[in-house]
Amino acid sequence: MLIRLGYDIIFDTPAPVPFVTLLKVHISRVNDLLQLDELKISSATHFECYFDSFGNTCCRFLAPAGQLRLSNSTLIHDSGEPDPVAPWAREIPVQHLPKEALQYLLSSRYCEVDKMSNIATELFGGVAPGWNRVQAVCQWVHEKVTFGYQYANAQKTALDVFTNRFGVCRDFQHLAVTMCRALNIPARYATGYLGDIGVPVSPVPMDFSAWFEVYLEDRWWAFDARNNQPRIGRVLMAVGRDASDVALTTSFGMANLRQFTVVTDEVLQHEAAHV
Amino acid sequence: MLIRLGYDIIFDTPAPVPFVTLLKVHISRVNDLLQLDELKISSATHFECYFDSFGNTCCRFLAPAGQLRLSNSTLIHDSGEPDPVAPWAREIPVQHLPKEALQYLLSSRYCEVDKMSNIATELFGGVAPGWNRVQAVCQWVHEKVTFGYQYANAQKTALDVFTNRFGVCRDFQHLAVTMCRALNIPARYATGYLGDIGVPVSPVPMDFSAWFEVYLEDRWWAFDARNNQPRIGRVLMAVGRDASDVALTTSFGMANLRQFTVVTDEVLQHEAAHV
Amino acid sequence: MLIRLGYDIIFDTPAPVPFVTLLKVHISRVNDLLQLDELKISSATHFECYFDSFGNTCCRFLAPAGQLRLSNSTLIHDSGEPDPVAPWAREIPVQHLPKEALQYLLSSRYCEVDKMSNIATELFGGVAPGWNRVQAVCQWVHEKVTFGYQYANAQKTALDVFTNRFGVCRDFQHLAVTMCRALNIPARYATGYLGDIGVPVSPVPMDFSAWFEVYLEDRWWAFDARNNQPRIGRVLMAVGRDASDVALTTSFGMANLRQFTVVTDEVLQHEAAHV
Amino acid sequence: MLIRLGYDIIFDTPAPVPFVTLLKVHISRVNDLLQLDELKISSATHFECYFDSFGNTCCRFLAPAGQLRLSNSTLIHDSGEPDPVAPWAREIPVQHLPKEALQYLLSSRYCEVDKMSNIATELFGGVAPGWNRVQAVCQWVHEKVTFGYQYANAQKTALDVFTNRFGVCRDFQHLAVTMCRALNIPARYATGYLGDIGVPVSPVPMDFSAWFEVYLEDRWWAFDARNNQPRIGRVLMAVGRDASDVALTTSFGMANLRQFTVVTDEVLQHEAAHV
Repeated sequence: MLIRLGYDIIFDTPAPVPFVTLLKVHISRVNDLLQLDELKISSATHFECYFDSFGNTCCRFLAPAGQLRLSNSTLIHDSGEPDPVAPWAREIPVQHLPKEALQYLLSSRYCEVDKMSNIATELFGGVAPGWNRVQAVCQWVHEKVTFGYQYANAQKTALDVFTNRFGVCRDFQHLAVTMCRALNIPARYATGYLGDIGVPVSPVPMDFSAWFEVYLEDRWWAFDARNNQPRIGRVLMAVGRDASDVALTTSFGMANLRQFTVVTDEVLQHEAAHV
Repeated sequence: MLIRLGYDIIFDTPAPVPFVTLLKVHISRVNDLLQLDELKISSATHFECYFDSFGNTCCRFLAPAGQLRLSNSTLIHDSGEPDPVAPWAREIPVQHLPKEALQYLLSSRYCEVDKMSNIATELFGGVAPGWNRVQAVCQWVHEKVTFGYQYANAQKTALDVFTNRFGVCRDFQHLAVTMCRALNIPARYATGYLGDIGVPVSPVPMDFSAWFEVYLEDRWWAFDARNNQPRIGRVLMAVGRDASDVALTTSFGMANLRQFTVVTDEVLQHEAAHV
Repeated sequence: MLIRLGYDIIFDTPAPVPFVTLLKVHISRVNDLLQLDELKISSATHFECYFDSFGNTCCRFLAPAGQLRLSNSTLIHDSGEPDPVAPWAREIPVQHLPKEALQYLLSSRYCEVDKMSNIATELFGGVAPGWNRVQAVCQWVHEKVTFGYQYANAQKTALDVFTNRFGVCRDFQHLAVTMCRALNIPARYATGYLGDIGVPVSPVPMDFSAWFEVYLEDRWWAFDARNNQPRIGRVLMAVGRDASDVALTTSFGMANLRQFTVVTDEVLQHEAAHV
Repeated sequence: MLIRLGYDIIFDTPAPVPFVTLLKVHISRVNDLLQLDELKISSATHFECYFDSFGNTCCRFLAPAGQLRLSNSTLIHDSGEPDPVAPWAREIPVQHLPKEALQYLLSSRYCEVDKMSNIATELFGGVAPGWNRVQAVCQWVHEKVTFGYQYANAQKTALDVFTNRFGVCRDFQHLAVTMCRALNIPARYATGYLGDIGVPVSPVPMDFSAWFEVYLEDRWWAFDARNNQPRIGRVLMAVGRDASDVALTTSFGMANLRQFTVVTDEVLQHEAAHV
């Protein structure tokens, strides 16, 4: 399956302002790209890309005063398979986890593991460890939290979501991530492209999506407390402890978002021949 | 100058429990060690040491049920010089920072940069950038916050410290770190040994200390909002975004602290000859 | 001046649910009414009105399953004068305040006086006491906080507003109320009708408004950190410690708001002759 | 049974400072007093006592610069009966509650009913309404929260207690009160004298105590999530929405507590003859 990916984002920047972006496909998917995954910038200086400590491809640059446009259009090959489901996958005791996974057990800005430890134990401590326990967390969050764009709030933490039960995509994942960590299951926040392939077309404009990954058995697996069903066509861009680590754009000064569109559409093969 | 370093920590562990510790001298000071910096563990399996993503030396192991004792005694050479003071050191624009410093601009568990951005700007936005602005932050925190061990609270964030104005060592540093980040100055939390050399002997038992580091000009510099004066004999153990990253011991299950002593004393040369 | 007041509010109530409403004009304005201020309820049992401990006129009733409609249309005489401005009005030392005012010095759900005491002192402790200090608080809040309906959040406290600087009407008042109390100036939250008389017509649908009252010299005075200018035509409905006390409708069970319109329009005399 | 009640409290007051105290036995127990319940004040002006909106006896005065001593010693008759237990007592639907009870359903400073509504419903929504449901709340709080004076924190709310599970007397009651309100059961915070009669003598110095009252059937009943067993010899001083309303002393300016002792001891009849 081929998927067309892209975005077109415009900021007003009253004064020159440095940016860091995570707008590239994750290194783990680079081999699937059929076209250049190029971050086009209307105008910038000091442009530099690098890997952050989580292995994400970041680009940093200085945007001039005026307007900044970030755009891209690329094509990726995807298996077309839904997210794997592996009920046999076991939780790994902390002493056997790969050391890279350990940081994903700790508290972070939006995931107050320390505050939610008792709550998670009460809700899920009695569920048998392994894949199905993570699935139980997803199920619980999915059922208890109501989605709505009007609930978007950049300061909302997992505990806030737990108490007020409303949120956007990232809020669902933050709550589920925190629950998992509190159960000593490494969990990390993921962000990327996710279209409507195989599901009813969403009535709202396409956006980047958040999901999360959990370390079970011998690898990271995608879970999604917002959708709570295997989906086709996730294209990972970045992972981190929570949304604070993987903001798609971070500006270090004033930048007002003026336009924001995301594309992630299946492309039929004969169409692809012409792209 | 020679400094005797060490600790003796005992936990009750009702059941086997995995631990991660950051109880070793930081790699940047390893060349100063005159004796082995060995983490002695009463009993453990699956012992392994590694560097985390911040470059700290972590050790992970599984403690058996019963009691766990962690101890160490080592000797380090120190310049005997107080923390450097460099009023000429400039803030570096985000686009020129080394990429490793960028993560220290973001929000973390105890440092809600997003929530304190306006506050920091109102308080310090008018101060000329550079060393003296960081010093102004330290001065403000030092004057406004009252120290007391009875205020220790592992859930206290920088904003909490800003509102209630009481805290322990780490709280001072979290607030200062957050202010600096909100001003686009990379700041990281540091923990290590710090004795009473050159200052009145503290009436309370020795403990590990927290301070913070700020990136100015071309390097990281130690600042200390708790003491707010150059000190002699800091021995760094770990740096991270905040106390969540560099807890000296993290247990993934129940572990009750029973005893805790820290040693960090100047050793006279003739004494050292016999150690 | 005559003002037409009214509302039309519809809830879906899947099961019978008790309600408490504060939808009547405050007792202090009853003598100005030219028509009955009648809360019309589509259907209810156990209807009873009473004064709460703040002196507000509350009505309690049991709404049946199905739909609940609350409506009213009445006519009130207003002086047509803008809010009084009294720069000579002094703050009253706590020991001389009327005892009824003392509760308005304490912390409440949305007004964490305890947490904001240092902040208020730092910002306004140096301003000369009296009317102008309260005005300085209003000015500060008005300038620092950005209004937007999208920021409505029923859990937002004064401290939240102080940190994130976005909010709706009630958020402005909560912050100003908290600052005043922290300065030992009694301040209470007020809610009622406020139209567009004498100001540009608002582009958004009419709503009930929040403002606040401060005790200075020998009486309560209206202040409004949202609008920050004297307005014509405030009609008080209720006062309390904060929005928690004076919610216009409180349901003790599920009730989904379906429609909400408020009327508060100046009526010309010759029109009034026919109403 | 006779109980000796009293206190001796000393504040340092660097400058004159107004105080409000709730240091008198509640009006509902005044008929049981055998001696004058006199608040002795070392020195004060503008002394005045009054009932607040909750019916508590408050005293307000201006303390001079220097030192303030508040003391009292009185004698009260008590039934000697433990707190009543009434498993037959029913919850009253909101539409049938006495109107005075309705305010005790709302959120307050330390009791965020809005934030804990879902949590309370999940934990206790399935328990049959009535006395035993309130008892289940007490039981839960009593079991889940660990007592310790070192956890005293004047800013700790019910939600904080729910997450961190440590606290002092008032924290237990705040959490239980909030749970009850979230279940539409009126609950109010109570403070007063409570000695060791009939229980093992506490190893810590006597203090004032907090408990809470719940409206069931046709009256308010004492519950105590801290002790969670019927106790003998409660002497009520004040009720309110939470600890913010019924602080035993509130100073409107600096006042440093220097000494604090409370007496509440059973007096044998032959001793009483001589007091």
